[in-house]
Amino acid sequence: MDKVNLRKKFKLFDEHWVPKIVGELNGQYVKLVKVRGEFVWHKHDHEDELFLVVKGSLTIKLRDRDIELDEGEFYIVPQGIEHKPFVEEEAHVLMFEPKSTKHTGDVKSELTVDKQEWI
Amino acid sequence: MDKVNLRKKFKLFDEHWVPKIVGELNGQYVKLVKVRGEFVWHKHDHEDELFLVVKGSLTIKLRDRDIELDEGEFYIVPQGIEHKPFVEEEAHVLMFEPKSTKHTGDVKSELTVDKQEWI
Repeated sequence: MDKVNLRKKFKLFDEHWVPKIVGELNGQYVKLVKVRGEFVWHKHDHEDELFLVVKGSLTIKLRDRDIELDEGEFYIVPQGIEHKPFVEEEAHVLMFEPKSTKHTGDVKSELTVDKQEWI
Repeated sequence: MDKVNLRKKFKLFDEHWVPKIVGELNGQYVKLVKVRGEFVWHKHDHEDELFLVVKGSLTIKLRDRDIELDEGEFYIVPQGIEHKPFVEEEAHVLMFEPKSTKHTGDVKSELTVDKQEWI
């Protein structure tokens, strides 16, 4: 595998809420996602999920509080915890999670994407 | 766990080549390390290791080529591959690797640190 330049990778797609795989290690994927608006409430019963903001800002709504992330900040949503990403303006986010992680976890929604694409 | 601000975490230590743990998920650690000068040749027989440059630049020497990383670029060193990080000026690097990963892998050196510290 070659090195990955985050900025260049983000230029390769415009869709929102559809993570793209850019790396794989130890059974985990590194993914990039552009987000805007709100996602759906969901949880992953067996996977922790890391969100690192590369550009812009992101709110991760939990049932008991909101996590506000700015550029250069990350948060790990523990397995089993319901969460809902939300953002007013477009943000660029890097995610780390197991390869087994489903897009919208335990729920199906019109935003659900089953296929995982490498870029 | 609370959110993690990378810039603030890097202000908490000055040592070089001693990764600090800032997150844990799915049996993996997220670590931050300040690097300057050269590390030792080593490999990890069973762990892939990700290096993401947050500030500055980093060369990862492999036996057959050099990987040159600038800010916002990452590289995953596959398990079993000998590597030697090298940098002229101080750089700040985020690492992602299994909790089981040893600092200098299959070798012992004066740079080896066995204790892993959270910050």
